[in-house]
Amino acid sequence: MQTSALQHRFERIRSNKFFEFFVISVIVLSALLVGAKTYPLPSAITQATRFFDWFISLFFLTEILIRFLAAKNKVTFFKSFWNWFDTLIVFISMIPAENAEMAIIARLVRVFRVLRMVSIVPELRILLVSLVKALPQLGYVMLLMFIIFYIYAAIGSTLFEAINPTLWGDITISLLTLFRVMTFEDWTDVMYETMEVYPLSWVYYLTFIFLSAFAFLNMVIGIVVNVMEQENANARMALDIENREPTIADVMVELKSLRQELEKTKSTKTPQ
Amino acid sequence: MQTSALQHRFERIRSNKFFEFFVISVIVLSALLVGAKTYPLPSAITQATRFFDWFISLFFLTEILIRFLAAKNKVTFFKSFWNWFDTLIVFISMIPAENAEMAIIARLVRVFRVLRMVSIVPELRILLVSLVKALPQLGYVMLLMFIIFYIYAAIGSTLFEAINPTLWGDITISLLTLFRVMTFEDWTDVMYETMEVYPLSWVYYLTFIFLSAFAFLNMVIGIVVNVMEQENANARMALDIENREPTIADVMVELKSLRQELEKTKSTKTPQ
Amino acid sequence: MQTSALQHRFERIRSNKFFEFFVISVIVLSALLVGAKTYPLPSAITQATRFFDWFISLFFLTEILIRFLAAKNKVTFFKSFWNWFDTLIVFISMIPAENAEMAIIARLVRVFRVLRMVSIVPELRILLVSLVKALPQLGYVMLLMFIIFYIYAAIGSTLFEAINPTLWGDITISLLTLFRVMTFEDWTDVMYETMEVYPLSWVYYLTFIFLSAFAFLNMVIGIVVNVMEQENANARMALDIENREPTIADVMVELKSLRQELEKTKSTKTPQ
Amino acid sequence: MQTSALQHRFERIRSNKFFEFFVISVIVLSALLVGAKTYPLPSAITQATRFFDWFISLFFLTEILIRFLAAKNKVTFFKSFWNWFDTLIVFISMIPAENAEMAIIARLVRVFRVLRMVSIVPELRILLVSLVKALPQLGYVMLLMFIIFYIYAAIGSTLFEAINPTLWGDITISLLTLFRVMTFEDWTDVMYETMEVYPLSWVYYLTFIFLSAFAFLNMVIGIVVNVMEQENANARMALDIENREPTIADVMVELKSLRQELEKTKSTKTPQ
Repeated sequence: MQTSALQHRFERIRSNKFFEFFVISVIVLSALLVGAKTYPLPSAITQATRFFDWFISLFFLTEILIRFLAAKNKVTFFKSFWNWFDTLIVFISMIPAENAEMAIIARLVRVFRVLRMVSIVPELRILLVSLVKALPQLGYVMLLMFIIFYIYAAIGSTLFEAINPTLWGDITISLLTLFRVMTFEDWTDVMYETMEVYPLSWVYYLTFIFLSAFAFLNMVIGIVVNVMEQENANARMALDIENREPTIADVMVELKSLRQELEKTKSTKTPQ
Repeated sequence: MQTSALQHRFERIRSNKFFEFFVISVIVLSALLVGAKTYPLPSAITQATRFFDWFISLFFLTEILIRFLAAKNKVTFFKSFWNWFDTLIVFISMIPAENAEMAIIARLVRVFRVLRMVSIVPELRILLVSLVKALPQLGYVMLLMFIIFYIYAAIGSTLFEAINPTLWGDITISLLTLFRVMTFEDWTDVMYETMEVYPLSWVYYLTFIFLSAFAFLNMVIGIVVNVMEQENANARMALDIENREPTIADVMVELKSLRQELEKTKSTKTPQ
Repeated sequence: MQTSALQHRFERIRSNKFFEFFVISVIVLSALLVGAKTYPLPSAITQATRFFDWFISLFFLTEILIRFLAAKNKVTFFKSFWNWFDTLIVFISMIPAENAEMAIIARLVRVFRVLRMVSIVPELRILLVSLVKALPQLGYVMLLMFIIFYIYAAIGSTLFEAINPTLWGDITISLLTLFRVMTFEDWTDVMYETMEVYPLSWVYYLTFIFLSAFAFLNMVIGIVVNVMEQENANARMALDIENREPTIADVMVELKSLRQELEKTKSTKTPQ
Repeated sequence: MQTSALQHRFERIRSNKFFEFFVISVIVLSALLVGAKTYPLPSAITQATRFFDWFISLFFLTEILIRFLAAKNKVTFFKSFWNWFDTLIVFISMIPAENAEMAIIARLVRVFRVLRMVSIVPELRILLVSLVKALPQLGYVMLLMFIIFYIYAAIGSTLFEAINPTLWGDITISLLTLFRVMTFEDWTDVMYETMEVYPLSWVYYLTFIFLSAFAFLNMVIGIVVNVMEQENANARMALDIENREPTIADVMVELKSLRQELEKTKSTKTPQ
């Protein structure tokens, strides 16, 4: 019973409004700290940031512990993706930075503490989950797009490698160059260069742009239609519940009972 | 009672079609004046523009006074955002330009007189209000986008600062560079530079482009769905009013009264 | 009556499938001729193109005459926008090219003969009309956008004129530069240049991009919603006609007559 | 009967899950092979790829044969577009590479074996068919867009040829330059160059950008509306089938039979 009492106490801490506000403040502080370190700072402040770093790490560790102890079922605690996410970020960001090389990695890793903002604000969590859920629906369009990219990259690195190996050296670099062409980033420079050797190579670029733009458009329309369909389904369901007043089916039920009444009237009349 | 008579007279001036037309003409004139001053002008015309400036200032002041005196309730006059907006613009644009430095500020401030066009044309006012109202709905998507930007900017300025301090010097500059990458503005130049040191840094740029494009797409779809929903709600309401002829509910009411009639017929028959 | 006989004969020519096909062929030929002249041609072919030019001019003139003579009412002929359009293009493209300067103008003017394709194909005509009709709906958004552009251009040419007069010399050039910024065309080059003098000028560019992008997005959504509304209205109307079988209103009419029957039964029974 | 037995055996092979999985694996392998060849490889591996090439060719040939022999009706086999597609790709990719020039062509041709991924995965096949089917709906908008491009290219190559023959030499090159302008790729460089000779030539570029952007927007909206309409039609049809419970028409049928009953009651009563 003692553990249960402890659990209740920790649950009360976790649900406390001030505690929540304090956690968000510390996350924002850690974000600002990450930003501040990119500026050249006097050594006194650098010392202070080191202290803050340890404070944030300890605070996050304590917070995770409180959450863990506040959980009724310790097994379901680890079944939640966001608990794993938080725990991982907290532990990874506690890697000590001993030498210069490790220092950069430690700094990079601490950047991800900003991501805890997503796990702490429910609206952001819902948004991220819905974004991730929208991805698989696009699976086949993205596969088709990758096939288009792959074929063009293979053709590109076969034909244009001799012209500019920096852009068309192998299939990976060609894929990157094609992505650049797709974003229209100085794509004519790439094209004019190859047109000097193969004057008809504009066909390659234009067909690629049309195909990828068309596939991309299809992807966007796919998302829009999906979202709309869901909206319409929700609206219809809402309408169904709200309008759970009379429907045509109810009219039919009513009419049938009316006819039975009539039948009865007739039958009571005939014996007469 | 005298004040009331005065108020009525000013109200009649304000509602006058010619007065309204004249106000719009003066606003257009002030806009043209602002444009004209950006050209090199002969000194005679420069003198004339100075005169026009004072004329416009005085006219606007008079107009605001007429509006104020025409208002029935002087308190509600100052409760309207657009009255504050107009008054502020008029007073600010009357700052005198004494020395060269102030002259530029005075010129800049007068530019905002063009904004009075928005406050005078009701359609523009509605448009602006609806634009501003659409913003908070996007709050969380924009927060998510800012978190993405912030994390990438922190990583960028940690890793790439030594390569090009002009682009990745601190987190503010990195944010600007990332915005540039998001608009696809010479983003490959930025990427190729860092790829010479970190050959895998294309992962950084491509994941950033995909994440921000995806979040942006989501934002646009969010707006579209919001607008559509509102449209549908409006259409349904319009339909409800227009179709306030018979509905299924009316059929049910009718059927029930019919059944009662039948019941009565039966009951009047049985005693027979 | 003789004129009427002539009119009928010309009407038969005009409606002739072969004639229509021939007209389209000549328009395509004139388009090809315009394209061919942009290539360096041997003088023999240049002579031939001159001959073709005269042939096309004469043919178009003849065609317009046939159309005019085929029209039942000569007044309504000139009331049609497309007849004016055709006549104007034909007459303008017959301007003789005497000297070198006029030759270029004559060539340019003949380019517009390609536009006759729009007037001859009904589907293109409908498309163009619907495009033009969509424009005024966007009137106020475009006015708001112009105000945004104008204010930023005025500020830009006031502050940045000394930095780069080629880009910010006067308000017209500033408007062009801002349009360039809006298309993201090397906009960072423009920004970095002014940031050297005013380090905070990125605020100017970013607010401009956000405002114009937001207004543009609003414009696009406006068009989409307009198109959708029209589609929905059409669909509802189509549904109304198609479903002009029974509606709830019909049920009500039927029910009311039923009740009257019942009333009659009752009334015939009571005297009994 | 022997052929039928053989056909059944081949049909069983074709429908075998392992066989299908193996075919997809070989297609993926051929794609990887195409990619691998773009890297500089040691001669031992180059030998291996040559062997793999022959293995894939033979495997694909065998697979097509199995499909052919498994088909019940040999005529319908050749009526399927995808069978022709597969057969063509397999045969073309078997062209032997004798000399250096042919080697490149042979390599290019083998790239298209990756396209077999589309013919083997039904979802991709459906996606491609729906993309191709969406194209003709856009026919007239694309024709209008081509006319806009053609007229501007003719004007451009007439006026600007002397300024920069690389960009405006003839109508084909001008079309390419205009496409570049439409993608906003360094379009101001093109414009500033011609503005030095014709200061008003920005009108040419801006009107072109507005016209083509407007036509493009119209095209996109056209696709979206088409897709939505289809969706709505599908939804309505699905609703019709699902709701094939009672409709208003059913109510009417019921009401009419009710009235006939009443009539009968009346008629049986009156003789009474």
